[in-house]
Amino acid sequence: MTKLLQVDFEFDGPFGEDLSNRLVEIAKSINNEPGMIWKIWTEKAAEKLAGGIYLFEDEESAQAYLEMHSARLKKMGIAEVRGHIFDINGPLTNINQGPIGR
Amino acid sequence: MTKLLQVDFEFDGPFGEDLSNRLVEIAKSINNEPGMIWKIWTEKAAEKLAGGIYLFEDEESAQAYLEMHSARLKKMGIAEVRGHIFDINGPLTNINQGPIGR
Repeated sequence: MTKLLQVDFEFDGPFGEDLSNRLVEIAKSINNEPGMIWKIWTEKAAEKLAGGIYLFEDEESAQAYLEMHSARLKKMGIAEVRGHIFDINGPLTNINQGPIGR
Repeated sequence: MTKLLQVDFEFDGPFGEDLSNRLVEIAKSINNEPGMIWKIWTEKAAEKLAGGIYLFEDEESAQAYLEMHSARLKKMGIAEVRGHIFDINGPLTNINQGPIGR
C-alpha cells in the first residue's frame, strides 16, 4: 500500500532558481530510489524552511529513503529533520482528487 | 502560482475506514473551497497523528482554507494545528513527476 512521506527542516537557502540549478543531479538520483513514485519539492524562504512530499510504494521503501535522506541532510549541516510516514485514507483522498495513483 | 499546504495535528481517531465513513460530507465540501485543487488525507494511528496535503491555486486561497480548517479543528477540540504554506520548486518537482498540474 502506498505511503506518503512528509519531510521538512530549517534551511538557509538557496531557494527557487538557485536551488533548482544546484540540485538537478540529486533530483535525478531520487528517481532511482527504490519505491519512489513522485516528489513535490517544498520551500519557504521567508521562514527558512524546506522539505518534500513524497509518494512511496510501501512503508519499507519510505523508511529506507527517510533514513538515507536524513543522513545526507546531516552531512549538509541540517541536524534536525522532521519526517513522518503517513498512511493515506484512500476513500477520502479519492473524493478530493488526491494524486495517489501510479 | 500553485501552493502546497501541509497540515498535521495530534488526533485520537477514528482512523481508516471509520474515519472515511464519518467524513464523506466534509470531504465533498472541501471540493467547493475556493482554489482547492486536490487533497491527500494523511493519518498515522500508531502516533495519533492526522493531517492533509493540499494543492491550492494560490497563496490567498491556501491561507483562507488554513484559517477556516484550523477553526473547525479547534471546535473539535484540536487546539494545536501545524500548518505550512509552501512554495513549490517547479523544475525539481517536474524531474520527480510531482503531480502539480491541474
